[in-house]
Amino acid sequence: MTSTHPMWLTGNTPLRGRTLHVAGEHRLLDSVRSDAAEHGLRLIDDDTADVVFAPSGDAGRFGVSEADVARLGPEGFVAARTGERTVVAYGGAAGALYGWFQLLRDAAGHDAPAAVTRCEPERELRMLDHWDNVAVHPVMGQVERGYAGGSIFFDDGRVRGDLARVERYGRLLASIGINRVAINNVNVHAREARLLTDDLPDVARIAAALRPWGIRLHLSVSFAAPMVLGGMPTADPLDAGVQQWWAAAAAHVYGAIPDFGGFVVKADSEGQPGPFAYGRDHADGANMLARALAPHGGLVHWRAFVYNHRQDWRDRKTDRARAAYDHFAPLDGRFDDNVLVQVKYGPLDFQTREPVSPIIPGLRRTRVTLELQVTQEYTGHQRHAVYLAPQWREILDFRPFGDDGPRIAEVARGGMAAVANVGDDAYWTGHPLAQANLYAYGRLAWDSTLDPAAILDEWIGLTFGPDEAVRRGIHAVLDDSWLTYEAHTAPLGVCFMVNPHHHYGPSVDGYEYSPWGTYHFADRDGVGVDRTVATGTGFAGQYPEPWASTYESLDTVPDELLLFFHHVPYTHRLHSGRTVIQHIYDTHFDGVERVDRVVAQWAGLRDAVDAALHERVSERMAEQLRSAVEWRDQINTYFLRKSGIADERGREIY
Amino acid sequence: MTSTHPMWLTGNTPLRGRTLHVAGEHRLLDSVRSDAAEHGLRLIDDDTADVVFAPSGDAGRFGVSEADVARLGPEGFVAARTGERTVVAYGGAAGALYGWFQLLRDAAGHDAPAAVTRCEPERELRMLDHWDNVAVHPVMGQVERGYAGGSIFFDDGRVRGDLARVERYGRLLASIGINRVAINNVNVHAREARLLTDDLPDVARIAAALRPWGIRLHLSVSFAAPMVLGGMPTADPLDAGVQQWWAAAAAHVYGAIPDFGGFVVKADSEGQPGPFAYGRDHADGANMLARALAPHGGLVHWRAFVYNHRQDWRDRKTDRARAAYDHFAPLDGRFDDNVLVQVKYGPLDFQTREPVSPIIPGLRRTRVTLELQVTQEYTGHQRHAVYLAPQWREILDFRPFGDDGPRIAEVARGGMAAVANVGDDAYWTGHPLAQANLYAYGRLAWDSTLDPAAILDEWIGLTFGPDEAVRRGIHAVLDDSWLTYEAHTAPLGVCFMVNPHHHYGPSVDGYEYSPWGTYHFADRDGVGVDRTVATGTGFAGQYPEPWASTYESLDTVPDELLLFFHHVPYTHRLHSGRTVIQHIYDTHFDGVERVDRVVAQWAGLRDAVDAALHERVSERMAEQLRSAVEWRDQINTYFLRKSGIADERGREIY
Repeated sequence: MTSTHPMWLTGNTPLRGRTLHVAGEHRLLDSVRSDAAEHGLRLIDDDTADVVFAPSGDAGRFGVSEADVARLGPEGFVAARTGERTVVAYGGAAGALYGWFQLLRDAAGHDAPAAVTRCEPERELRMLDHWDNVAVHPVMGQVERGYAGGSIFFDDGRVRGDLARVERYGRLLASIGINRVAINNVNVHAREARLLTDDLPDVARIAAALRPWGIRLHLSVSFAAPMVLGGMPTADPLDAGVQQWWAAAAAHVYGAIPDFGGFVVKADSEGQPGPFAYGRDHADGANMLARALAPHGGLVHWRAFVYNHRQDWRDRKTDRARAAYDHFAPLDGRFDDNVLVQVKYGPLDFQTREPVSPIIPGLRRTRVTLELQVTQEYTGHQRHAVYLAPQWREILDFRPFGDDGPRIAEVARGGMAAVANVGDDAYWTGHPLAQANLYAYGRLAWDSTLDPAAILDEWIGLTFGPDEAVRRGIHAVLDDSWLTYEAHTAPLGVCFMVNPHHHYGPSVDGYEYSPWGTYHFADRDGVGVDRTVATGTGFAGQYPEPWASTYESLDTVPDELLLFFHHVPYTHRLHSGRTVIQHIYDTHFDGVERVDRVVAQWAGLRDAVDAALHERVSERMAEQLRSAVEWRDQINTYFLRKSGIADERGREIY
Repeated sequence: MTSTHPMWLTGNTPLRGRTLHVAGEHRLLDSVRSDAAEHGLRLIDDDTADVVFAPSGDAGRFGVSEADVARLGPEGFVAARTGERTVVAYGGAAGALYGWFQLLRDAAGHDAPAAVTRCEPERELRMLDHWDNVAVHPVMGQVERGYAGGSIFFDDGRVRGDLARVERYGRLLASIGINRVAINNVNVHAREARLLTDDLPDVARIAAALRPWGIRLHLSVSFAAPMVLGGMPTADPLDAGVQQWWAAAAAHVYGAIPDFGGFVVKADSEGQPGPFAYGRDHADGANMLARALAPHGGLVHWRAFVYNHRQDWRDRKTDRARAAYDHFAPLDGRFDDNVLVQVKYGPLDFQTREPVSPIIPGLRRTRVTLELQVTQEYTGHQRHAVYLAPQWREILDFRPFGDDGPRIAEVARGGMAAVANVGDDAYWTGHPLAQANLYAYGRLAWDSTLDPAAILDEWIGLTFGPDEAVRRGIHAVLDDSWLTYEAHTAPLGVCFMVNPHHHYGPSVDGYEYSPWGTYHFADRDGVGVDRTVATGTGFAGQYPEPWASTYESLDTVPDELLLFFHHVPYTHRLHSGRTVIQHIYDTHFDGVERVDRVVAQWAGLRDAVDAALHERVSERMAEQLRSAVEWRDQINTYFLRKSGIADERGREIY
């Protein structure tokens, strides 16, 4: 295929031919009008239209009750349906935009929508972070951890001239409720640093392409920018000259992009510069930037991914999992209001299975942005079909203070951000089914209580239409795919058995003697990391109760996180009744069988979906199966060689 | 330092001020004259000079007996000394050149040379192979497996304009008896393929720079050249058009370079094209090229490094060590006279410790070129001080047919080749002490019976002058350095515990689940590769007796090769009396202690050698020590975790 896949906005809708009236004047209302026209609705200036959008204050005229629209925020809307007529009462123009895309979703769904639907986003900040480089990085490529081709923003060392695709991207993101996008990699190399200055006119063009869709642009910046770009002798956040440099830089940016979102900063992390060089702490660094942005309404996303990446593997007391809490908990309460501390969901690094990071509940007086990863860095590089919404729901549903306390979705008051998974690939995401992850992320950022299967239903209906066989087939492929991936990769929450650097495919000892702080300590007797307070690194004690105790004890730690918290013998018996070693063998054989079934399920859809798309997915699935077999055999062989314990069922291990 | 280190030709010699007469006319005699002048000798046209060079037929006039010069070959010479007078009777002009450098060596030595010395090279073909790329390769760089900067031949995607350094290199090589140089990488990429055609004028410039030093230039060529360069539809060696293409290409090369040496070919190896694509074998491929070169006196070096590099690690019957024999033994007798089958010394790949490749004695009717590696790919990347001459002597002294049979030095009738270790680094070799390896390689190629310690003495005397403390210190650093490196790296001939791709530093399981065919099969009970005929891959049976039986049996296999041939329990007792596991611990602790002592020895020379050189070596030694500790700890920890057997002496393992 040479044209670009439309993702879930195909232009097909049962609303085609209906009349539409959008009351009010706003560029976002114009976007509603133009998108509706593209979907074949007839725009009329008449209150009797089939579909009417009206400000919530006027909605009474159309039979929407005042109670329904009470205290409706600027991004909220109420959709009221009577017979063939739909009225969308919007709190603000953004609400109209989101209401319009909700109508498209409802029309594609197979259940009739409720008579009155009131929708507001759970959180104001719903963000996507692109790890795109302007210049192709010699190791990381154009898009760091990107598995879908080049960047949609940058090409050949500069901002693309033609931003038509960025506009389409903005529309797609608006349709799932995303309202902020950081366009460049948190690892800010020399070329990328200049986006803040020399390239501002081009960055402004990107902002202009996203603005009609209610999306504000953010930039990742280098903490060393005053030195790298400004030629100053220091980047000390307490230096008055540095503060002035940043204030001027911010003012300059807002001169070009009045609705600029703010800065994303990876500081003192994996070699990036930061305040430590000057004996300052992260609050000093973040607040300095925050004060430059505050006059303009900008935000600082200050990442908590700070740890010693030059650890001595011999040192079993140092624990990378502790690092974010150790660094940031002492700073709680010191961050300015427009600082958001952005925390990866787990204490390590976007693993297939990790506990939720304890620094999220640990920062009670700080706005925490939860960071997810849509791009499949550790979950199969968009060669494996892995639907991540079930993982995200588990994270969002985690109640760090126990059953009576709030969910992570509520605890993380600084909204949600996620690393994007799109590129200039014709299908946007390399693997066509990976589009579902982007879709689901937006939907969960809007409403974290949505059911992953229901979200998938929406995505399938919009993307593939109403074919029931396709719906069932894709559910069969994706519903349990995260657990399938977990089954044939690193077992029981032990993490990091991937190939170093690129993070694809198995390498059980790949990180075992490395400086990266990610070890499993497998020996002939057992495996796992003792992170207990009693005998280990003490990480379990970073959680509030009941989790500190739950994770501390072998009696209560969940099976799926056993090896994250404990070093146990291979003969240790899980709550499931199986031994650890037998669990490893069983899940790895089972994982491949599950992939086998998935491949067959997809093959059965050959005549039901677009041929080119089917072929693309089939190619990836051949690799998924090969890779799953490789995972199974390496993991099983490794642990058989170490443990000497045969598989109870006598299956082939090499 | 900004200027280039002179290596062992410093210009200092006790011969300075002596008078010299060189009788005869030849460009190589001119080289003797100019080099002698550079060394401060006074050229006179007078038989009474202190030093006289004369053709062997004339030597009687100077008191050299006819018996002494009988049957002297074109590269041979006789040096006769009476009092202060020296007469060099040369068989040919090349003999005069080598005689001149022998005089320099003798003058720098601390023992008086013999009254009459007759010298001839053991073998005609004494070659260095450069793995230099014209264009910087994205992964392999400018020089594949190069640890000394860029190429001395190529820069910025083309042949260097200024070849002064190549001329100096030619002089250095002549001084150690090298007479052939292949200038480009055996992995011939698209850019490099064009050396054969478009770049010929530039290649001819390199040949011209080497010619005054008696060195013939060879090119590595792509077997697919008729397709890549000639636009032909095939490279089938039995295709008449392909044969004509090569004949024309060879004629074209000889038109530009009349003394061109020939082609080096890596075919059907690690992805390089070859005759297999057309259902032909290596003899078909090599002979086709040989016939294109034969009319011009050219040679084909056809490499035997052919194996399946996409092996399934699960398959324990396939054995990469068998590959060269399996591929080439059936072809014995089918190669044309000007084909040299070039064989790496070991059956795997330039490992620190391997048995000698059985295909060398296996090709009784084929001229085999023994291939050594001067560049320290698997022996510490010229960060570790590792003097390789002792390893080479062991290889050269190996008697494949038993005590009464010939040495490998004699069996390999196609001469010696080695991968070069120089680059555009100021010291030529990165690590200044790695110069000794280049020196020793040339000397052993000339005379394989030279003692490594004596060669080192020569090199030290020429390079550092007569300081006895320096001599002792460098001997202390280098004499046992190969065994030291072996001690702290992969034990007992097990091979390949290095990091994949770059091959520096430990990664015990780095290749264990890879497709490269290099495994150690360590499990909780034991380690090693069963290559016996009785129960293993049968590789041991590729040797003639007595070695087939010697390697087959645990009673007779040498300790240092135990794990190359056998899979044994950690408790297996070596001939040394130690168990395998205790040997591993002991040698790894000992290896680091040895490096510690080496560092101290070198520190003691601080005031005795050039400060910049001392500093360069000291920097490298800091890395050598760090790396040795890393090797020790990773290997010991790995095997402690696997075996569960504690060190008898209770030393720290992690």
